[in-house]
Amino acid sequence: MNWNKLQQELQEKLHNEIPPTKTLLFTVETLNEKHLSLQAPLDHNINDKLTAFGGSIASLCTITGWSLCWVIAQINALNADIVIYKSQMKYARPIKKDFTATVAFPPKERLQDLIEKLATKKRASLTLDVSIKEDNKVCVQYSGEYVLLID
Amino acid sequence: MNWNKLQQELQEKLHNEIPPTKTLLFTVETLNEKHLSLQAPLDHNINDKLTAFGGSIASLCTITGWSLCWVIAQINALNADIVIYKSQMKYARPIKKDFTATVAFPPKERLQDLIEKLATKKRASLTLDVSIKEDNKVCVQYSGEYVLLID
Repeated sequence: MNWNKLQQELQEKLHNEIPPTKTLLFTVETLNEKHLSLQAPLDHNINDKLTAFGGSIASLCTITGWSLCWVIAQINALNADIVIYKSQMKYARPIKKDFTATVAFPPKERLQDLIEKLATKKRASLTLDVSIKEDNKVCVQYSGEYVLLID
Repeated sequence: MNWNKLQQELQEKLHNEIPPTKTLLFTVETLNEKHLSLQAPLDHNINDKLTAFGGSIASLCTITGWSLCWVIAQINALNADIVIYKSQMKYARPIKKDFTATVAFPPKERLQDLIEKLATKKRASLTLDVSIKEDNKVCVQYSGEYVLLID
């Protein structure tokens, strides 16, 4: 897998097709066989207390989970629409620097189930946990359920 | 209560002190004794399927709940910091037009409890339900727990 190329394609897709990710200067920081990270600059996503704005945090977590679904679809040649269906999040600590949301690839068996279900049912869902840490402390925990659909 | 003046103050606070709300063109649509609504234009908050981007929806709901807490603080002369602590949301239908998130004022007894708790404990939380409808159908349901803090 050419991770660098896929990372570049994801970055272009986000900024070209989902304009608010460009407006808020979200960038793809890391993509490898283990995880995906998206970054947001604090100064463009700041609040009245000079910490990260909760809405921008929610937005970054939402698109990070969505992006991993997109990557999974690309790797497995699935021509699927991907939509967010449900999410929950907890803001444990304020964020005081540029921030990075990270999501790990699900276990292989889980991915195999997803691909099989998509092939038979044309629809499958994937729940992903996204987190934001600062100085090794968890600031935000997010869980999102995404639905993949094939025409 | 001069609702027009308070609406204008809220609009200025959001755009001056929380820059991503200005970047995404969120505006305060309605503020009266019953409810508060914030609006977002679709074209600035669109996704690859030409519907509203989930991250922008999450952001708008988060700031709508926060804004009602701010309004409640202003009305009751509470000099409180307001932070989002937890949220959950469900995206029931895609949004295809400019969209408006609406939150109702909590019952008076609930507000009285909040004010009393803040006075004694210096900290109180308020859970608010925000929704987005299009053509009278619910597209998004959000619930956020906000914490108010007094120094």
